[in-house]
Amino acid sequence: MSAPASRLRTVLNHLLPSSNNNTNNPNPPHLSHLSPTFFLERAAAIEPHAEAVYHVTANQRVLRRSYRELADRARGLAYYLRKKGLRRVGLLAPNTPAFLESIYGIVAAGGVMVPVNYRLKEEDVRYILEFAEVDCVVVDKEFEGLLVGFRKARPEVEVIVDLDTDVKEGQLCGPYDEAVLEGLTYDRETGSKGWADLVSQTVADEDDMLAIPFTSGTTSKPKGVVYTHRGAYLAAMANVVESGLNLPDGRCKYLWTLPMFHAVGWTFPWSICAVRGTHVCLRKIDYPLIWKLLKEEGITHFNAAPTVNTLLCADPNAEALPRPVRVTVAASPPTAHLFEQMTNLNLLPVHVYGLTETYGPITRGYMLPEWDTLPKKEKYAKMARQGHGFVTALPARIIKPDQPEGVLVDVARDGKEMGEIVFSGNICCKGYYKDPEATRKLFAGGVLHSGDLAVWHPDGSIQIQDRAKDIIISGGENISSVALESMLASHPSILEAGVVAVPDSHWGERPKAYITVRRPTTTGPASGVGNSLLRGEDVIQWARNHSAISRFMVPREVEVVRELPKTSTGKIRKNVLREWAKKGTPREILEG
Amino acid sequence: MSAPASRLRTVLNHLLPSSNNNTNNPNPPHLSHLSPTFFLERAAAIEPHAEAVYHVTANQRVLRRSYRELADRARGLAYYLRKKGLRRVGLLAPNTPAFLESIYGIVAAGGVMVPVNYRLKEEDVRYILEFAEVDCVVVDKEFEGLLVGFRKARPEVEVIVDLDTDVKEGQLCGPYDEAVLEGLTYDRETGSKGWADLVSQTVADEDDMLAIPFTSGTTSKPKGVVYTHRGAYLAAMANVVESGLNLPDGRCKYLWTLPMFHAVGWTFPWSICAVRGTHVCLRKIDYPLIWKLLKEEGITHFNAAPTVNTLLCADPNAEALPRPVRVTVAASPPTAHLFEQMTNLNLLPVHVYGLTETYGPITRGYMLPEWDTLPKKEKYAKMARQGHGFVTALPARIIKPDQPEGVLVDVARDGKEMGEIVFSGNICCKGYYKDPEATRKLFAGGVLHSGDLAVWHPDGSIQIQDRAKDIIISGGENISSVALESMLASHPSILEAGVVAVPDSHWGERPKAYITVRRPTTTGPASGVGNSLLRGEDVIQWARNHSAISRFMVPREVEVVRELPKTSTGKIRKNVLREWAKKGTPREILEG
Repeated sequence: MSAPASRLRTVLNHLLPSSNNNTNNPNPPHLSHLSPTFFLERAAAIEPHAEAVYHVTANQRVLRRSYRELADRARGLAYYLRKKGLRRVGLLAPNTPAFLESIYGIVAAGGVMVPVNYRLKEEDVRYILEFAEVDCVVVDKEFEGLLVGFRKARPEVEVIVDLDTDVKEGQLCGPYDEAVLEGLTYDRETGSKGWADLVSQTVADEDDMLAIPFTSGTTSKPKGVVYTHRGAYLAAMANVVESGLNLPDGRCKYLWTLPMFHAVGWTFPWSICAVRGTHVCLRKIDYPLIWKLLKEEGITHFNAAPTVNTLLCADPNAEALPRPVRVTVAASPPTAHLFEQMTNLNLLPVHVYGLTETYGPITRGYMLPEWDTLPKKEKYAKMARQGHGFVTALPARIIKPDQPEGVLVDVARDGKEMGEIVFSGNICCKGYYKDPEATRKLFAGGVLHSGDLAVWHPDGSIQIQDRAKDIIISGGENISSVALESMLASHPSILEAGVVAVPDSHWGERPKAYITVRRPTTTGPASGVGNSLLRGEDVIQWARNHSAISRFMVPREVEVVRELPKTSTGKIRKNVLREWAKKGTPREILEG
Repeated sequence: MSAPASRLRTVLNHLLPSSNNNTNNPNPPHLSHLSPTFFLERAAAIEPHAEAVYHVTANQRVLRRSYRELADRARGLAYYLRKKGLRRVGLLAPNTPAFLESIYGIVAAGGVMVPVNYRLKEEDVRYILEFAEVDCVVVDKEFEGLLVGFRKARPEVEVIVDLDTDVKEGQLCGPYDEAVLEGLTYDRETGSKGWADLVSQTVADEDDMLAIPFTSGTTSKPKGVVYTHRGAYLAAMANVVESGLNLPDGRCKYLWTLPMFHAVGWTFPWSICAVRGTHVCLRKIDYPLIWKLLKEEGITHFNAAPTVNTLLCADPNAEALPRPVRVTVAASPPTAHLFEQMTNLNLLPVHVYGLTETYGPITRGYMLPEWDTLPKKEKYAKMARQGHGFVTALPARIIKPDQPEGVLVDVARDGKEMGEIVFSGNICCKGYYKDPEATRKLFAGGVLHSGDLAVWHPDGSIQIQDRAKDIIISGGENISSVALESMLASHPSILEAGVVAVPDSHWGERPKAYITVRRPTTTGPASGVGNSLLRGEDVIQWARNHSAISRFMVPREVEVVRELPKTSTGKIRKNVLREWAKKGTPREILEG
């Protein structure tokens, strides 16, 4: 087949004049290389006074900044990095304005950002920063401790500490703000070139790297995922369209419940600026505060894993909202029960699915109007599907898992045969940083392997069954731990469930479930059904009588625990549950 | 500077595996070349039963087709073209389903479409089709007569006539439907490969040509404008976001008032399918029918030139709509008066501006919430600005017109200094087909020259003053004919105004205005102000006393005419007015 990229110019030559020196665009006039950094410069030009940031700072002050201020601060950081010759910047912070500014400032300076999960151990943080070869780190004061080891090992790396406090007249608030001001001064003293001299409107090559977010690495060393300007741009545009961020009658107000370090916040730092929305930043998940913001700040959108939504719906402050809020839900598959609860609160789910390797979301379960006439259970079951590829993505495929590496054979589109979800196209990452072997495996056969198992429905939509390693094989039958968790969660007193395989002499494997119970609430739909009395054997009995739970799927054991172990992105940590199953659940975790 | 395109692959090599033969994507897995044709295949997969087309046929039957039907028919045409080896297809039709199907079918077959304005003279149609080297023409029965000369000259070119009648069981409705069926049969007999074997999910090179729409050519031969897959894709995505076609709470229903031949319908044939909206096709502009559809079919969006909106607002059926309809307004600059009228009818303007050379719209006048507190006049004056570059475009610039060719010097951003609007970036065409000299001029200095004069406001928004050749220079003062037309249209009895320069011995030039008067309506805001009595001298007197019209701007002559001459896209044909001014207005045009 052709090598399209290298043909790009050849085709032009008879038509087009040579490049010129009069503009910022070094390409033929009809080709500008895509970069999402421009969205901020553009927003500040169109609506300088629009509210770009709302934030409660570390010192509990409410901070509101306009698009002009956000753009100025990002520009300041960019010129600071340029002045110092810094090109690769680690980011270790909660969802703060400094994080947002850095996402723009680092790339505008021509650099690459390396966002790091602040819930990792110190040694993992050090591993990531060293592996990614950062020459600078922007760190939130709260997480400075995580850098001790790294700083000892790499004393030459500049560390910029952000205090996340509001800057008041004549009062500098820490090194990060000083750096921003130093950058702005540098720009002023070198000719006030502003954004025109930064990497913003277009980029030398849209296939160049702009970020290296890392996978969570529950089982092995975290892997650095290479994001490009083009990929981030097309993912961000898709998120605008799929989550409906371009509201027809007002400005989007986006609540940052999703961590920005996670897949660069699913590219939403760019999507929100593309539509000149307000970023409502949040240092941490705080359910009463979230409900306060939902009710008082006119939030229109947020993104969250099902586990966050589950706890949000169970919060005593939960109350049906007067206007619909679009909630983009991903990570682990949501239950039909959760969808129904959310809808009742006017939290309307946009159900997406993706990986760090796909810039976050890459498929969406599109709701069809004809489902409205279906029985509720069927409707919510359809809504729980992962659906179809995003508007700027290619279709997802499901391939047979038992083929030689690199051989792609589609499974039947019958909603039954299980296979591995694979992707290709523009919303796929470029590879793993400095790991050709892992990259080769990721792209075996020319597609991106998700490692997730799913069935393919006749309409081309996909539905996740499990992570390949999470499937339970009992007497030759495949049990989807995800499906079983979803069924258990339909019990009125069960809040969340995590299921893993335990060895069984007769069946080979059988499921074991860990559950948390629902607390009585004033508004929740299922309050006070004798929760504290719920025992594992009750659940097993209930499961035996449940029409949708086949005999072989009934858990062998059910343990009630205080909370389920989760990754920083809200996925249940199955490896911890397997550890518990092997060595016994820690006493302090057991309920009652 | 770098040659980014040719670097695209080089950068990849250390990371990525070589391409594979297992997928439809011949590129590295993370790069699929953008093509908007995929939007239809995708829509039909996700929502096969969603209504894709509503249309009243030539034989007055209401036709409704689903996305599966639309996709099947486009696929049939594609396989027919492939079977016959046809690669470049002229399109001569009003806004019919066949036109829409052809836009997808031709490109899916790997071909290039050449849409032709059916309001042109036979010799111009022949010129375009010969110049574009078509090997096939799809023509609507009504316009077959325009092909007589072309068919004689090129008898080898296949002509497929569409009757635009509904196909009923067992009854074939003309050659176009037969071709579609033949194509579907061909696909079935050669292995039923469907969309998988067509050019849809990705394309060999996104910078390849997919369409050659022609400029209207009021003063010279029409020029063919080269559209690429990438350009059309990014323009279509921008239109989704800018016109808000992805409604949060339902499906977009788009009314085809804009001709599809014009800049391929501003890329909306693709935008609408990207969001799985309904195309409500229209054979011709029929104001009572449009009002009927607005009221009864739940139209959510349409696009139209100000002149169409003016007449729509003046139609006796005009009535404030219960739900807002977004009207994307472009072509000639709309008056503040028109904006106000439309808003009162719940026709909410999205004000855009562009050229055939920019895939239609490329800038938008963004409405800012802070304008709501301004006095009405100021607010509507701001709304009439052409605004800022689209989300997927680069910023528009205004350059001094008096520089040597290719030298770009920005005008002051003071809202006063006039200069030429220039563009660059992805929503610019690739050039003029087979016209290197015109292409060189179009891109002189590395930017796309619009030929439109505008001022640049301090916030970076642009505001058109005139076509360069339409400016009136009177006693050394520049008079914007557009601004004067807008002021005249604020007279309660004036419907539309067209202003041109006439020679003046003292001042050099002075303005002459041609106006049409408003008919009394039952609902219109300014009915029966003695319209039939309005005379030119009354208007001159009124203009003398108008605070915003400077003395030197007052027209020397005003003639009341029955209608203004317009191009097929609704722009006032200033060359005809200049002709009238020189040789006298034709008697049958004069009012009263």
